[in-house]
Amino acid sequence: MATDNNRFQAIISHCKEYGFIFPSSEIYDGLAAVYDYGQWGSELKKNIKDYWWKSMIQMYENIVGIDAAIFMHPTTWKASGHVDNFSDPMIDNKDSQKRYRVDHLIEARIDELEKAGQQDQADLLQQQMDQLLANSDFDGLKTLIENNKIVCAISGTANWTDVRQFNLMFSTEYGAISDGSEENKIYLRPETAQGIFVNFLNVQKTGRMKIPFGIAQIGKAFRNEIVARQFIFRMREFEQMEMQFFIRPGSQKEWYEYWKEERMKWHLSLGIPADQYRFHDHVKLAHYADAACDIEFNFPIGFKEVEGIHSRTDFDLRNHQEYSRKKMQYFDADIDPETGKAYGNYIPYVIETSIGVDRTVMMVLSQAYEEQDLSTEERQDSRVVLKLPAKLAPIKLAVLPLVKKDGLPDIARELMNGCKGSFRCFYEEKDTIGKRYRRMDAIGTPFCVTIDHQTKEDGTVTIRHRDTMQQERVHMNEVKAMVLGAIG
Amino acid sequence: MATDNNRFQAIISHCKEYGFIFPSSEIYDGLAAVYDYGQWGSELKKNIKDYWWKSMIQMYENIVGIDAAIFMHPTTWKASGHVDNFSDPMIDNKDSQKRYRVDHLIEARIDELEKAGQQDQADLLQQQMDQLLANSDFDGLKTLIENNKIVCAISGTANWTDVRQFNLMFSTEYGAISDGSEENKIYLRPETAQGIFVNFLNVQKTGRMKIPFGIAQIGKAFRNEIVARQFIFRMREFEQMEMQFFIRPGSQKEWYEYWKEERMKWHLSLGIPADQYRFHDHVKLAHYADAACDIEFNFPIGFKEVEGIHSRTDFDLRNHQEYSRKKMQYFDADIDPETGKAYGNYIPYVIETSIGVDRTVMMVLSQAYEEQDLSTEERQDSRVVLKLPAKLAPIKLAVLPLVKKDGLPDIARELMNGCKGSFRCFYEEKDTIGKRYRRMDAIGTPFCVTIDHQTKEDGTVTIRHRDTMQQERVHMNEVKAMVLGAIG
Repeated sequence: MATDNNRFQAIISHCKEYGFIFPSSEIYDGLAAVYDYGQWGSELKKNIKDYWWKSMIQMYENIVGIDAAIFMHPTTWKASGHVDNFSDPMIDNKDSQKRYRVDHLIEARIDELEKAGQQDQADLLQQQMDQLLANSDFDGLKTLIENNKIVCAISGTANWTDVRQFNLMFSTEYGAISDGSEENKIYLRPETAQGIFVNFLNVQKTGRMKIPFGIAQIGKAFRNEIVARQFIFRMREFEQMEMQFFIRPGSQKEWYEYWKEERMKWHLSLGIPADQYRFHDHVKLAHYADAACDIEFNFPIGFKEVEGIHSRTDFDLRNHQEYSRKKMQYFDADIDPETGKAYGNYIPYVIETSIGVDRTVMMVLSQAYEEQDLSTEERQDSRVVLKLPAKLAPIKLAVLPLVKKDGLPDIARELMNGCKGSFRCFYEEKDTIGKRYRRMDAIGTPFCVTIDHQTKEDGTVTIRHRDTMQQERVHMNEVKAMVLGAIG
Repeated sequence: MATDNNRFQAIISHCKEYGFIFPSSEIYDGLAAVYDYGQWGSELKKNIKDYWWKSMIQMYENIVGIDAAIFMHPTTWKASGHVDNFSDPMIDNKDSQKRYRVDHLIEARIDELEKAGQQDQADLLQQQMDQLLANSDFDGLKTLIENNKIVCAISGTANWTDVRQFNLMFSTEYGAISDGSEENKIYLRPETAQGIFVNFLNVQKTGRMKIPFGIAQIGKAFRNEIVARQFIFRMREFEQMEMQFFIRPGSQKEWYEYWKEERMKWHLSLGIPADQYRFHDHVKLAHYADAACDIEFNFPIGFKEVEGIHSRTDFDLRNHQEYSRKKMQYFDADIDPETGKAYGNYIPYVIETSIGVDRTVMMVLSQAYEEQDLSTEERQDSRVVLKLPAKLAPIKLAVLPLVKKDGLPDIARELMNGCKGSFRCFYEEKDTIGKRYRRMDAIGTPFCVTIDHQTKEDGTVTIRHRDTMQQERVHMNEVKAMVLGAIG
């Protein structure tokens, strides 16, 4: 069995070898922190998105979806605070022209001190940095770097610029005029949430939505992370599944707890054990939140955030009202028992659930990946199996004629034709059955059916279960219902 | 009944009023040529994408999907020719700072001449422009503009810059360093096709694909069109569904015809009559193609391209081989009947099918939209109905208790709970049944079920069919199967 770090590397290799995830533009040596989903990864990702969409929209009477564009009016990001606040303090070395995130630069020195056994000095530096960062004291941070004689790893000099904020949004020039002026500058959205907020009025009115109600969407977002890493965990282009739930002011505590519980149920519905998850409450809250937590999953790289639940108050709608001069109000005709009158007009409060599609892919793959030693006294044997939930597996059923003659392929194709309209099937007639089973294990196919000579006589086939490797003999006509039952 | 242009405007209004499509960031007065899909538009769009994915991938043994990133290595666009060739000739007026597409500027003058009855001069100008454009003679184009005394509509002057190429790709700066240097410049992909070509080797090898085989994907693409217009027909951010089919060189004519036929069958499977479509063969071929045609649909704005079928030869793979120095070859072990030997190594040829998601949405909506006069001698009446194919409709079943008392809502919810795991349902108890039916007609819901007092007695409900408005009495237990049968 692999250690945790080895296990992580093994999963990354497996993803590439079996067509789940490739480095982007790999023939050009890749583009840092971007990945492409291959033939089975794209199916897994689509199944995850479809399952979330079904769980969050189809199953709730009071939640609808939208699909807003990546390009938005630039004032959106003024109102949301991203133009002013979505940035990291950075510093450039004048000799090497290399730019560093200030916290990473200082943390590297802290690591050095710790390794050299100078724990007291390390602790002091950490404390100093934390305080300066909390105060956004950029001059102080520069002085701290200089006083600690921190140098650039490339030039070896301490010839630093001032510390400046570096915005994480990608920008581009829009429209007919490309003259470098600020007027035509737009951003690639750094989160999907604002697409929901700017459409709040349109959806509420045209959909006749009554509070409490939710608007959900799935889509790409982009962040120019300085240090993007850990495979698909932190990418510069990634995908989010977000739902904003609009509620009456004052009811946010109750709904926050409700959505924490609902979302954890969703995670457990993937068949992942509860001890693989934990809630992490935010101590330092973002400027828009009055409560926030992460759902963390036990990745091979440790417990890390896969989803966030945030009580966002009326921060976003209120700011959009201010910047757009459009009333972001809802008229609530329900009677307030305390006053005996209708609640009337208010700007709704919001509970957000925000989960990363790519992180969910990584979570599901991490949980499913298993290296098994199947050796017996007679022979060495092993397999890698992805124990994916059947509903998420890229292929549901492999149809394998024992030999490619004697009419067995025809019978196999007949079975395929009966099933492929209902779920994704895979046909293969090459190599031994054992090898074909192993390849299906490696991509997580829950069922394999073998057509043999007995099939010609009595119509029965062997169905083999991925996780137990057990085989049973059933009639061909029962296969489709068995698979449908399992993928529910 | 509306005229064609009125009909187009009526559809746009309907899309906004009923939550299908909103102008992007509308509270900030919109972003030109970008739209957001609302609560019903997002479902319609998703259903179209799912149907295409199922038709093109699930139903073919030899086609797989991928999901490549929007960000790609910049050399991709060198190899594809987009950096050098994906541009329009533009000219700026120095006084107004306004930029024009040269062909649009001259065409405006041609229109003027025609309106003034000077047809000969209009024809001459058209001929001159066409020839200069074909030769990329930019100096000649500038002279033509000056000689014809064409002025800027804003400044009124003929103080023009030289004619220059303006690339239609959006660019952004990538990575940690944002210093405006060319090194960090990347593009938002202007087409999804290249994501397939750069992944050709990875997918072919890890998927053990044998020629002929296809790779398909759905995804966003971006083009900084100078004149983007006609609602969602030409947007700066749009979505494509593309499939690249890799074949043996020399077999391209046969496969081109095959895919023309297959794709037309797909269109007809939407229930749209054949006379609403036509093929338009390209006379002037793109530099990469040896045959190409469009499938045009009869939009309210006339017959326009909704899909393209292109025989792309080995242009893309050959160029990526040259730029990446990676062999884009396939070893074909099949025996060539002419030589008696294996076909051996070659760079595959490619047939592409490329359909716009947004244009398909617009096609389906245009076809479905119907204003009906239902007046009788007794009373005036009318309705707007979207006769969407049931499999594409945002909502499949509306469940409507006749009154919101006497336990009818409970029975309605029981029916909902039995159905909502299988397809999208909608519950509504407000307003008269007639009004509720009309609202469901307007968003294309194929079935409405009414729960009344008789339901309590014998378990039967009224099911109402959208297109015929006919109602029948069936048992509650039969409703789910009826709907499932219709959405197939």
